[in-house]
Amino acid sequence: MTMISKSRLGTRAQPEQSRAAILKAAVAEFAREGVAGARTDSIARSAGLNKALLYYYFKDKEGLYQAVLDEVFSGVRIAIQNALDQDLPPRERLKAYVEAHFNYIASKPLFPRVVQAEFLRSYRSPAGLERLAKRYFLPIFAQLSALLEEGIRRREFRPVNVMHFTPLMVSVIVSYFITAAPVITIVTGADPFAPELLSERRAAVLDFITAALFAPKTSPGERLPARHEPAPHATTPTQKGERK
Amino acid sequence: MTMISKSRLGTRAQPEQSRAAILKAAVAEFAREGVAGARTDSIARSAGLNKALLYYYFKDKEGLYQAVLDEVFSGVRIAIQNALDQDLPPRERLKAYVEAHFNYIASKPLFPRVVQAEFLRSYRSPAGLERLAKRYFLPIFAQLSALLEEGIRRREFRPVNVMHFTPLMVSVIVSYFITAAPVITIVTGADPFAPELLSERRAAVLDFITAALFAPKTSPGERLPARHEPAPHATTPTQKGERK
Repeated sequence: MTMISKSRLGTRAQPEQSRAAILKAAVAEFAREGVAGARTDSIARSAGLNKALLYYYFKDKEGLYQAVLDEVFSGVRIAIQNALDQDLPPRERLKAYVEAHFNYIASKPLFPRVVQAEFLRSYRSPAGLERLAKRYFLPIFAQLSALLEEGIRRREFRPVNVMHFTPLMVSVIVSYFITAAPVITIVTGADPFAPELLSERRAAVLDFITAALFAPKTSPGERLPARHEPAPHATTPTQKGERK
Repeated sequence: MTMISKSRLGTRAQPEQSRAAILKAAVAEFAREGVAGARTDSIARSAGLNKALLYYYFKDKEGLYQAVLDEVFSGVRIAIQNALDQDLPPRERLKAYVEAHFNYIASKPLFPRVVQAEFLRSYRSPAGLERLAKRYFLPIFAQLSALLEEGIRRREFRPVNVMHFTPLMVSVIVSYFITAAPVITIVTGADPFAPELLSERRAAVLDFITAALFAPKTSPGERLPARHEPAPHATTPTQKGERK
């Protein structure tokens, strides 16, 4: 009896579990109701915890919302980091990154809704997105760009415009979860998170990105084709119309 | 004097202009405030028209919002149609499509916000997105898929999985306006709709898509490489892991 009421109240003896339970309930509530519509009562109730404890940990609804965004993006960052930290040549590391990023989002169906809501909110109130960009987007983009530049230098990748290729690659990875999944659900009634559909899409994403990025393979012993531009050039924004 | 008050009231003698003025003001209001926050008073006021006229044309706020969505997507559909109707071989038609789709969205900076808000709303209320999918997304996707299949048949395109390649290609075209533009604005203070940035991005988008799709060129007179799969296969979802 004492144990049950302790757990309901979320004693400070188990702060990590209580905090995690609140965050989990908050992700669901913010994904469903948006920032304006979300209610801290509902969150405390689904977490099975006292609302006072929610305020103790997160100060207010806005503080809780920021913690939810950190939960979402620190998870993405760790998944990407683990893939990029592998000791692999650029092509293999690139494929490991694409799979890790895709798989992480596939494992968190509610996260894209929270992110979309934050992008929409940024048009009226940019501070939240600015914090996310500085804390997560820019460091991740810098790491991905470094990988692209390494691959270009080693002639494993085509000399793409890294400044644009990086965000385009990310959009190919995440678009399924943002725009395709809701349309699939509504139009076909199928579950877009069914393993077969996810695995088809992941293969198509890998095919799209690697075909766009990997330099044509040369036979063993064959001379590499001469590069027309020095490597640093590949990152400058002067390649417009290159393929026209 | 009579003219001014006539124009303010939006007489039924000029229904097209009045309707267009309301729609234009409504796009701005819905983009800024979202569906829930938008107010018909503000829309009538910025259109310089009587609120009664707004209700006369659009019935209620929801009716006006659906008309805004039709305004957005019928514009996209016409721009895409014009590109696809050109009598060009598949590679050139594909490039014409990519440029037309990109340029149309670039000319309408507020439209992506309205679309994003509708995707978010669909999680709670799917009827609106279902109508858009059936009226716009599916017919456009069918046309793009037909172009991809034609190019694959003629060996101008790689045998990609059309069912997945089509939405991935669209996401490469539109992602700049949905996710990159707000981040660029907030982080760098630059105008993402400045002509130089748009033209760089358009070149990068064309490069990304054509490199992912176009079959490696063969020299004139050279025999085309043998196809390992029959053409109809290219549209079935069985190519997973193809490039692994």
